[in-house]
Amino acid sequence: MAQYRVLIDANDEKGLVYKVSTVFYEHALNILSNNEFVDKVNSKFFMRSVVDGDINIQILHDALKTILPKTTNIQVIAPKKKNIILMATKEMHALGDILIRHEAGELEANILAVISNYDALESIVNKFNIPFMSISHENLDRAEHEDKIMQYIDSYDNVDYIVLAKYMRILTPRFIEAYENKIINIHHSFLPAFIGANPYKQAYDRGVKIIGATAHFVNNNLDEGPIISQEIIHVNHAYSWKDMQKSGRDVEKIVLSHALKLALEDRIFVYANKSVIF
Amino acid sequence: MAQYRVLIDANDEKGLVYKVSTVFYEHALNILSNNEFVDKVNSKFFMRSVVDGDINIQILHDALKTILPKTTNIQVIAPKKKNIILMATKEMHALGDILIRHEAGELEANILAVISNYDALESIVNKFNIPFMSISHENLDRAEHEDKIMQYIDSYDNVDYIVLAKYMRILTPRFIEAYENKIINIHHSFLPAFIGANPYKQAYDRGVKIIGATAHFVNNNLDEGPIISQEIIHVNHAYSWKDMQKSGRDVEKIVLSHALKLALEDRIFVYANKSVIF
Amino acid sequence: MAQYRVLIDANDEKGLVYKVSTVFYEHALNILSNNEFVDKVNSKFFMRSVVDGDINIQILHDALKTILPKTTNIQVIAPKKKNIILMATKEMHALGDILIRHEAGELEANILAVISNYDALESIVNKFNIPFMSISHENLDRAEHEDKIMQYIDSYDNVDYIVLAKYMRILTPRFIEAYENKIINIHHSFLPAFIGANPYKQAYDRGVKIIGATAHFVNNNLDEGPIISQEIIHVNHAYSWKDMQKSGRDVEKIVLSHALKLALEDRIFVYANKSVIF
Amino acid sequence: MAQYRVLIDANDEKGLVYKVSTVFYEHALNILSNNEFVDKVNSKFFMRSVVDGDINIQILHDALKTILPKTTNIQVIAPKKKNIILMATKEMHALGDILIRHEAGELEANILAVISNYDALESIVNKFNIPFMSISHENLDRAEHEDKIMQYIDSYDNVDYIVLAKYMRILTPRFIEAYENKIINIHHSFLPAFIGANPYKQAYDRGVKIIGATAHFVNNNLDEGPIISQEIIHVNHAYSWKDMQKSGRDVEKIVLSHALKLALEDRIFVYANKSVIF
Repeated sequence: MAQYRVLIDANDEKGLVYKVSTVFYEHALNILSNNEFVDKVNSKFFMRSVVDGDINIQILHDALKTILPKTTNIQVIAPKKKNIILMATKEMHALGDILIRHEAGELEANILAVISNYDALESIVNKFNIPFMSISHENLDRAEHEDKIMQYIDSYDNVDYIVLAKYMRILTPRFIEAYENKIINIHHSFLPAFIGANPYKQAYDRGVKIIGATAHFVNNNLDEGPIISQEIIHVNHAYSWKDMQKSGRDVEKIVLSHALKLALEDRIFVYANKSVIF
Repeated sequence: MAQYRVLIDANDEKGLVYKVSTVFYEHALNILSNNEFVDKVNSKFFMRSVVDGDINIQILHDALKTILPKTTNIQVIAPKKKNIILMATKEMHALGDILIRHEAGELEANILAVISNYDALESIVNKFNIPFMSISHENLDRAEHEDKIMQYIDSYDNVDYIVLAKYMRILTPRFIEAYENKIINIHHSFLPAFIGANPYKQAYDRGVKIIGATAHFVNNNLDEGPIISQEIIHVNHAYSWKDMQKSGRDVEKIVLSHALKLALEDRIFVYANKSVIF
Repeated sequence: MAQYRVLIDANDEKGLVYKVSTVFYEHALNILSNNEFVDKVNSKFFMRSVVDGDINIQILHDALKTILPKTTNIQVIAPKKKNIILMATKEMHALGDILIRHEAGELEANILAVISNYDALESIVNKFNIPFMSISHENLDRAEHEDKIMQYIDSYDNVDYIVLAKYMRILTPRFIEAYENKIINIHHSFLPAFIGANPYKQAYDRGVKIIGATAHFVNNNLDEGPIISQEIIHVNHAYSWKDMQKSGRDVEKIVLSHALKLALEDRIFVYANKSVIF
Repeated sequence: MAQYRVLIDANDEKGLVYKVSTVFYEHALNILSNNEFVDKVNSKFFMRSVVDGDINIQILHDALKTILPKTTNIQVIAPKKKNIILMATKEMHALGDILIRHEAGELEANILAVISNYDALESIVNKFNIPFMSISHENLDRAEHEDKIMQYIDSYDNVDYIVLAKYMRILTPRFIEAYENKIINIHHSFLPAFIGANPYKQAYDRGVKIIGATAHFVNNNLDEGPIISQEIIHVNHAYSWKDMQKSGRDVEKIVLSHALKLALEDRIFVYANKSVIF
């Protein structure tokens, strides 16, 4: 008995659920969970099913391909640990939360390596017997620096996700296109607010009563890529901007870990600069 | 073109989604939304679909009945305003919120009447041109009092839900059985905590940092019926128990209105003293 | 025995708490609650005390004035209902919540009148025996329209707060200056995000996972005035922008009512385009 | 210039704030923050001030002692890292979160040791160069087991707090009394709900829509000690009890770390089985 996650997205038309469930039925698969969503505005259909049964992955994929419209995207995924690379700069909270969850066996992931443009996090990464790769940006222009990073990333086969756990450098379009819909970032505020330098200082100056964080895929809209997860924490006038930053860190790590979990469980569809999450 | 909500619950077996979607497909229905859930522990299948198409309600119902197992519960519902009766005692917050939402056209409901065992709320109910029925419990034993209430309720045809908007009398099993899965209550705390008299005083004495409220169907487990919705609000040591009560009222009205909305939209399945909410 | 709220804000210097508490002690006042905050960045001191005792309000005020630095702002307030005027356009949710709370005796306020630029809300306001003043903006330029509103407002003595319960017209600087720190607005999104037309449509297009609302004082920064209260609600991809708007309404009414309550209880200091809330 | 946290609790009477602020004023101290609370029900006064100035800690303490009533509890604390011992059983999430925060320099604490009744967590603790002490309960009665633990704890001088980071053994009154108001526990549910074995299974069976966690001091009321912090997370019918447990772990670790932070910053007063938190 094998278990598969079946992800389908298509232009909406009648009969898609019927066709997919026909395949499941004819192959005697159990449906363990099933989610569909139709975006009427964009005429898009999304479906995620978890099934089990006595069937080969290729046969299931082919059966779906045969019955569904040609332009349909079909993914049949046998659950297994995904390969991820973490990138960080100097702050430990988001990275540390992922390292501990990984150590505790909470994540369906192998952490291949941690890349940083500083050495500050080497000690914590080493504790977990994970390769730490320091790639300083000093004396390099942005393209040269990214070349080195990309070369290192590409030395691994099958990198499923690159997680920016407070990596504080702006990525170029070339980098982003190379890993489309694979880069997950945590944004240190509630998008679309307080973009730019020192967002907590901005939030403090503005006297906000809530601090937020946003996890999103990185695309060429930069911090405006498809949102995966958002959360907030209440603050008040007694918080200095450093206090807001500390509280913000707690939200950031929770939101990033949550977004990563959703990605590892193949729960996210991306389209039209948005996400559908089942 | 008609729109229907199709609600199906059944003992789980292979092919249920296939069979339902076959019916939708063969009758050329559009699926506007679709949710399924399988409770593996209890081997129960739940499905709620919103469809539109050119089909008579009876034909759709019969088509589903023909293809699905005999023990399946099938509801095909044409969306329309449901008939509700509100019951309250003296507090205005939960009742008032429903009255205003009704007036604003936010609720898919006709409020047939408000029943109270006191007169305190007559003035507010009258403002909205809704019948107010005062049925005092004085000098009556519980059965006699409920007889009068039931007689009044039963003078209306087709009462879909009875909403206890802070009705502070315990109902007897006879009453509850007469309106099974039709009575929605708001419980003034976070179930299963602080059952009994003056829960806010109990919460205060206990020094809680959070106040909650729970909306649930009333069954013979009384305050232990299937939970529909829960929400909380943060409090602290500076709250007196009256302050906690005031804050609690805000949560209560939000949770009750939310639960009512879910019921009116036919989003709730009840089984095994629990709810599935789509 | 009288009860007073004492509000003091001053440039920070040593001894302010000592001086205030000396006055309280020498006049044998009980301190029922006491909050202080020092903004080190702006060198500002804020203090709110609730005291009771056998003392005349003027004597207490004078005693504080004598001992405190000249530039100190001193307010000694005997708690009583404040006079408020509500302004709205067509939507009922925020207005209705305040009307019901007022009717339930939850607010320390007299609602003098409701002003609207349409007639849509006349019926609901009339139910509560509150004057409804329709002042259409049709065929008037902005100044002429506001003249009429200001004339009507100024026909009342002692208007403490003007509450914009979804009043959808932009106010001119002249209007805002006339009622400085007296105008409370509810902003239909999470400031500083999604300013402009149809913020829920913007939020939908952006695929946000959280909808927020912000209550703030209106000053010449318009929607950027001092924030009083903020709250959020979680949404997901299945929400249309109209669904987001509906959910947003629930947050809006809660946040606005909360902000109004804080104002009525004299809990807010405004400075540097921010608020201190005790 | 030294900075002190001054914590005062006393039977309420007039003039306490005056007396304390007199001391601060006469010694030319700056008040950096100041909180007071009077519990009218229990006639108790609480005050926490952070001050700086050119004064010896003993002189400040003596000055306060001289002026305040004899029964007053006065603490003058020079901020420094507190010594804590962690106790855990097999689960890594709560312990891991504290270890990472400690490593990141977020905690005002030295972790002296981790004690466990199993070896499961030895590897993670060793990574952080913190002594791991395995004290198995096998073949020991409860008293014997605790003797060994107490002996180990008492081998350290000045243990400020003992943090039960998912330590799954019930403590005896003798142990609890030995470390009164020093033991912080995280309770795996929303007190006072779901006490007993497998609370997440209980919550699942009950169909709850919210999962909570409670951090509290341990006293002879066991899980009913003074609450420090509570938080919740929303769940739904699609969560198995193991899913609820996973979500619960996230809340547990956040709440415990938050409670520990409050303790380390000397923000908690305990009385009447409750807490006042500034």
